[in-house]
Amino acid sequence: MIKVGIVGGTGYTGVELLRLLSAHPSVELVAITSRKEDGLPVAEMFPSLRGHVSLAFSSPEKAKLSECDVVFFATPHGVAMAQARELLAAGVRVIDLAADFRLKDPATFEKWYGMQHGCQDLLEEAVYGLPEVNRVAIKSARLIGLPGCYPTSMQLGYAPLLAQGHPLVNETALIADCKSGVSGAGRKAEISTLLSEASDNFKAYSVKGHRHLPETVQGLEAISGRKAALTFVPHLVPMIRGIHSTLYATILPEARTVDFQALYENHYRNERFVDVLPPGSHPETRSVRASNMLRIAVHRPENGDLLVILVVEDNLVKGAAGQGVQCMNIMFGLDEAEGLSAVPVMP
Amino acid sequence: MIKVGIVGGTGYTGVELLRLLSAHPSVELVAITSRKEDGLPVAEMFPSLRGHVSLAFSSPEKAKLSECDVVFFATPHGVAMAQARELLAAGVRVIDLAADFRLKDPATFEKWYGMQHGCQDLLEEAVYGLPEVNRVAIKSARLIGLPGCYPTSMQLGYAPLLAQGHPLVNETALIADCKSGVSGAGRKAEISTLLSEASDNFKAYSVKGHRHLPETVQGLEAISGRKAALTFVPHLVPMIRGIHSTLYATILPEARTVDFQALYENHYRNERFVDVLPPGSHPETRSVRASNMLRIAVHRPENGDLLVILVVEDNLVKGAAGQGVQCMNIMFGLDEAEGLSAVPVMP
Amino acid sequence: MIKVGIVGGTGYTGVELLRLLSAHPSVELVAITSRKEDGLPVAEMFPSLRGHVSLAFSSPEKAKLSECDVVFFATPHGVAMAQARELLAAGVRVIDLAADFRLKDPATFEKWYGMQHGCQDLLEEAVYGLPEVNRVAIKSARLIGLPGCYPTSMQLGYAPLLAQGHPLVNETALIADCKSGVSGAGRKAEISTLLSEASDNFKAYSVKGHRHLPETVQGLEAISGRKAALTFVPHLVPMIRGIHSTLYATILPEARTVDFQALYENHYRNERFVDVLPPGSHPETRSVRASNMLRIAVHRPENGDLLVILVVEDNLVKGAAGQGVQCMNIMFGLDEAEGLSAVPVMP
Amino acid sequence: MIKVGIVGGTGYTGVELLRLLSAHPSVELVAITSRKEDGLPVAEMFPSLRGHVSLAFSSPEKAKLSECDVVFFATPHGVAMAQARELLAAGVRVIDLAADFRLKDPATFEKWYGMQHGCQDLLEEAVYGLPEVNRVAIKSARLIGLPGCYPTSMQLGYAPLLAQGHPLVNETALIADCKSGVSGAGRKAEISTLLSEASDNFKAYSVKGHRHLPETVQGLEAISGRKAALTFVPHLVPMIRGIHSTLYATILPEARTVDFQALYENHYRNERFVDVLPPGSHPETRSVRASNMLRIAVHRPENGDLLVILVVEDNLVKGAAGQGVQCMNIMFGLDEAEGLSAVPVMP
Repeated sequence: MIKVGIVGGTGYTGVELLRLLSAHPSVELVAITSRKEDGLPVAEMFPSLRGHVSLAFSSPEKAKLSECDVVFFATPHGVAMAQARELLAAGVRVIDLAADFRLKDPATFEKWYGMQHGCQDLLEEAVYGLPEVNRVAIKSARLIGLPGCYPTSMQLGYAPLLAQGHPLVNETALIADCKSGVSGAGRKAEISTLLSEASDNFKAYSVKGHRHLPETVQGLEAISGRKAALTFVPHLVPMIRGIHSTLYATILPEARTVDFQALYENHYRNERFVDVLPPGSHPETRSVRASNMLRIAVHRPENGDLLVILVVEDNLVKGAAGQGVQCMNIMFGLDEAEGLSAVPVMP
Repeated sequence: MIKVGIVGGTGYTGVELLRLLSAHPSVELVAITSRKEDGLPVAEMFPSLRGHVSLAFSSPEKAKLSECDVVFFATPHGVAMAQARELLAAGVRVIDLAADFRLKDPATFEKWYGMQHGCQDLLEEAVYGLPEVNRVAIKSARLIGLPGCYPTSMQLGYAPLLAQGHPLVNETALIADCKSGVSGAGRKAEISTLLSEASDNFKAYSVKGHRHLPETVQGLEAISGRKAALTFVPHLVPMIRGIHSTLYATILPEARTVDFQALYENHYRNERFVDVLPPGSHPETRSVRASNMLRIAVHRPENGDLLVILVVEDNLVKGAAGQGVQCMNIMFGLDEAEGLSAVPVMP
Repeated sequence: MIKVGIVGGTGYTGVELLRLLSAHPSVELVAITSRKEDGLPVAEMFPSLRGHVSLAFSSPEKAKLSECDVVFFATPHGVAMAQARELLAAGVRVIDLAADFRLKDPATFEKWYGMQHGCQDLLEEAVYGLPEVNRVAIKSARLIGLPGCYPTSMQLGYAPLLAQGHPLVNETALIADCKSGVSGAGRKAEISTLLSEASDNFKAYSVKGHRHLPETVQGLEAISGRKAALTFVPHLVPMIRGIHSTLYATILPEARTVDFQALYENHYRNERFVDVLPPGSHPETRSVRASNMLRIAVHRPENGDLLVILVVEDNLVKGAAGQGVQCMNIMFGLDEAEGLSAVPVMP
Repeated sequence: MIKVGIVGGTGYTGVELLRLLSAHPSVELVAITSRKEDGLPVAEMFPSLRGHVSLAFSSPEKAKLSECDVVFFATPHGVAMAQARELLAAGVRVIDLAADFRLKDPATFEKWYGMQHGCQDLLEEAVYGLPEVNRVAIKSARLIGLPGCYPTSMQLGYAPLLAQGHPLVNETALIADCKSGVSGAGRKAEISTLLSEASDNFKAYSVKGHRHLPETVQGLEAISGRKAALTFVPHLVPMIRGIHSTLYATILPEARTVDFQALYENHYRNERFVDVLPPGSHPETRSVRASNMLRIAVHRPENGDLLVILVVEDNLVKGAAGQGVQCMNIMFGLDEAEGLSAVPVMP
């Protein structure tokens, strides 16, 4: 059994990790930390876990994280970078769900997250935890920076186009119009995500610039080996879970004869968690609800020069906790889908 | 024009007052206070008011409330009691949307609201602002304590039964199973009313005891002149506006032949804001959305001994701001429905 | 492996059976019928099942249901009664999710369902599929009539009170104020359950009389061995899944000293799918979302004479498909929780 | 008083017309037709109208529409074209909320709507009812084809860019990523818009081609006098009312120094129902809920070459019924805002 610790289990990605890991056949949950909730049984805060998780929150001091095989950080940005070094030194692998180890350039991190990066030497070692792009590196990684929820959908949506040896689309004029359920904002007391504010409502936000932009551009450039530029417009959808990314790309003249449906199907032929739908499909977020699956549909309206790629994922699973478990499975040599095969919940 | 001031306009009852009063033909909005938002144009916080409200929030000191004809308090409990005396002395009438002037017994107030009552002498003068029960007293009142949202629905739902010279139902074993939209919890940063927590979910709360219980019992006893006892179970509905109260009452043997449908229709025959539906109806909260109307249906399943009264209102209008405007209209000799005749918004 | 067939898989209970059974380790799904959708791969209608269910719908003629070990009917009322006899004769066990085999008295069935009962002789043999009440009979049953969604919550909510040798509450004046998500109305094209009609809205319905009333009364009387009478008021909640039943019962004078919390805890001590919460709890429907668990809280406001029992379940799982699988597990000697141990999905 | 008739009042645009017109000071509602509901009081179908509309539905034969000053068609496509000629001959003006008189080219109509156009000679006379573009023609029109809900938001969102004498953006590579509440699908019994299907879910639809595309292109070309081409991707949002259009346009090199914010503010300076928000704003659909207002924000991320225009409207008001009333006001020489000045309902 893999001994797993979780730092910061009171948010949505934390409780989702608990949901997945408590049912994972090869995992033993040994510690979950919360300084504020020290001593409180986890299932008292989250009654959905009654009968499944008997752990109590403990303060980090008591938690003996260094005896774990792997520790997940489901914490605000900045926490993992302060604790990773010590855990790694103790032989513990680290999977961070926050942004501390996503961006390779500390200056970019500091610009977008408004804090100094406290652990720059580890940035180079850290592996970006997107298995469909980075599987080999993940296998031997000690430290994983998991992708953000939006970046997962954008990178996996654009990857087949960008992974070719030569550009097929205008890679410096990409447009990603993304829509997320409200759980993406986290379990924080804020007026803007109250039901009375966010339900029966729709809006864009952060059009000026969102933290997931530099991460996604970095990822796209890593895939293509070429310069990429992206306009990213996130929107808030009155639902709990789910991301729907509508991705636009202008086909280059020399690529007009490419069969893009086949390109996508081939690219993801062997992936367990990426499902390319038949031509003409419109994926719905509920078709992946509570599952680690990501579904893609490829459209080319009126057979013109604009590709429209539709991508759906559950932001808390493939966009966070599930992807973390997928990485863990790879790191520990387990079947990549172990503990991740639940059927999406519909309706 | 009636000069109106609002103390505390950043919550839902405050912005609802602004929506109603900005369109009221006999009202001039002269001040709206918020210490924290001093100087901020109201329409900047609430873009729905752009083009309708040009006022800015001002700190209480600058607001010249004493030059108003009437001041509404849309504040947390405890604020109005601290400021009412001075305003009354300046000849300003006061309508409090909080609980400061609802309960006649200061000990009861202190027990349920956990604070000393700072203004006990005014309690006697204060008039309970439920027009369908208290219209005459409201007409000459200087100080109004507006009913809570749940108590409005419960009292108007039970009133026809209790207003008779002799009891028709067991008045000490009433059961009110009430359901409210989330806006009833106010515009406060709290985890429990986040969309991610409260949507796609249903629960009861405060079954042990809710502050609206003593207020309702006081009101029911005032209507009947007899002892009343009530079990009140509130529930949270994943919607923004609306209260649906399902009221149960056991018919006394001597009242088995009463025509309860006729009793209700007669009782409310002349009321502009209470609508008794035809027999067999099921009122929906959306049928009163954004309006001051309250609708009632009277059921007697299998012609047995249990009456089931269904009541719907918009908790922010008839349950708060609209009822305040209705009281104001009465106090200033206007048509009671002035500014309150909007058609409910459906769908 | 148990060979399972499903008749009528295009509704919500059908697709929920598919979700549960496709992940059940001891089940082989061999047929799913739909005359209208003959030949259509199931996963084409329900993309959430892509990768999990490879079956196509087939017309009943082709389906070879007689070779199954058990057949579930997820059909409108009246279908199972027409086909059960033949299947039973072929040695196939039958579990009906509709109402055909719930009511023992055919006259009652005919009154409430508006159709002749075509299979009265089997009514006597049919076992009511509520494991916590009827486990022994289920074990050897050939034919199961599964409880309705509301009746499951009401019966399990009242059972500890009624299962005693002498009455503790007034058993002929019970009140059940129940609230259901919209999926309870089924996957049918109807105006009243459109999102534009049912969301941001709340209403009662069928106050005059609902089909689940006679079923529940029959069940309560079977539990107590005494006469029971119930007022049942269902309401529609703007959410997809979940039932919350608020149950009222008047404590008899001789039972005033009973420790009701302990009574409930003892009664359900050994049940895997009934969870009695600690005193003072308010169960939320989301705490059981997509799981077979039912949670109960026991309240006695102000220590008075009225018990308030709060019950939540997922209407599609413990209220339908999950309970069916639970019965199947019992009938075939499997662990009762096999395939039913998923953690509820929260948020 | 203007005598108004409505053909087809049982859908959402019909009931919205009733909501607006019943409160319009210069309107007398004289007839509302529905063959199916002949004799049924309107307020019985729509209890929100109790006390506001006393009319009953009547069959078209009885309705004496020829005695009206103006008749609104809130009917499926194809109805108005069959009845308009006769009404016009009787001196009645006609405002069609469906698509019969939107497209100037009957071949285009036939291609997208799958029916012959029965009234081609009137197409030339028909005026496209978008006041901000077409006010003068509307003033003297006898026959109005009202824009669709999406086209209103797209045309008013792009108009300031396209209305200049020379192109500022690439007008043949426009992208409109639009999101609509479910009421846009109408009040029709369909599975796909059930609450259980459409809530807690998000999807694109009709990516291949949507009927509002040719209408919008026609409108954009009319504004610019130049060729336009547009990719239009509609999405379904789990809310009742509201459209949010996210419009993309690539700035031409010669227009890089244009102050687009000022351009928009100037263009709409005198419009009562178009509100250009301050720089950096993110309009929310709820800020226009139940009102005729349309709000726009202009973004240019990173001061690059891509403009992002955000537009919100209430699809049933500015996108349908409200725009119809606005046109009527213009046609009859009334204040353009008469009956349309309600404050949006928030929250």
